[in-house]
Amino acid sequence: MRISEGVEWAVHLCGVLGVVRDGYSLTAGRLAEFHDLPSDYLAKHLQALSRAGILTANRGVSGGYRLAKPARSITLLDITLAIEGSEPAFRCTEIRRQGPCAATPAACKHICAIAQAFMLAETQWRKALASVTVADIIRTAASESFDRARRQAFQDWLNNAVK
Amino acid sequence: MRISEGVEWAVHLCGVLGVVRDGYSLTAGRLAEFHDLPSDYLAKHLQALSRAGILTANRGVSGGYRLAKPARSITLLDITLAIEGSEPAFRCTEIRRQGPCAATPAACKHICAIAQAFMLAETQWRKALASVTVADIIRTAASESFDRARRQAFQDWLNNAVK
Repeated sequence: MRISEGVEWAVHLCGVLGVVRDGYSLTAGRLAEFHDLPSDYLAKHLQALSRAGILTANRGVSGGYRLAKPARSITLLDITLAIEGSEPAFRCTEIRRQGPCAATPAACKHICAIAQAFMLAETQWRKALASVTVADIIRTAASESFDRARRQAFQDWLNNAVK
Repeated sequence: MRISEGVEWAVHLCGVLGVVRDGYSLTAGRLAEFHDLPSDYLAKHLQALSRAGILTANRGVSGGYRLAKPARSITLLDITLAIEGSEPAFRCTEIRRQGPCAATPAACKHICAIAQAFMLAETQWRKALASVTVADIIRTAASESFDRARRQAFQDWLNNAVK
């Protein structure tokens, strides 16, 4: 069980887009450059984020991406589901209905206790991710992992990269 | 992101082993038969459960499996980690250290805010799974998905299968 690295990339890049001024955008190439990511793999994740209504893509060959809504309205859960799909991690295949002592449909009117327990656990996980927004990440990262030199480098890069 | 079906199988079969009387066991073949599972795939999961101290395997070609401890002392988290491995689902690859505005080691003394948020969510998930034991599953399944006919079929199968 593993969350794909596309989720890590997507959250980081939504954080970058969250500080781009209104009316400006960053191309897929620039977004890949920012964390030195493989642009072909990244492209499909950016498309998934667009389909999920998290990013807006400008049309045209030089088109860029921007957040489709405020950073405070995009949660880590939104991004995770956009990249990973919304199916639950535990997928009950109803094996209780198989074998020499298979449960009848009548005995299966309750959801399987095992599936139920995993669903509750996943609800906790989703709630936790839904409580953290891109704006929260930007705020924490700005105070914890940007020293003065990095802040300046980021501002210079951004001024040059946005369009 | 998907929990392998081996976890579903393992929890179900720990539930079956949880009602086998002390001193008795079920072979891998019988365990596969119970839910009509592919015995080759199942075998490696049974071995993983043994390595994790959840099952005890009797030696010999006709050796069977039994729970290594009481059903009330085995949680869904124990089983999940035994099958899936104990690595967290979100694996931070520290991409903040890559690219033209890479964070210096000094700026990375705090764990990345993104990794931190996913870690907290996974802690919630693990706590929920750690709160449910095989004994709980047996109790709920017995009351919800075993009607009288299935209970009898199960008892007959078990009497014949244990050794």
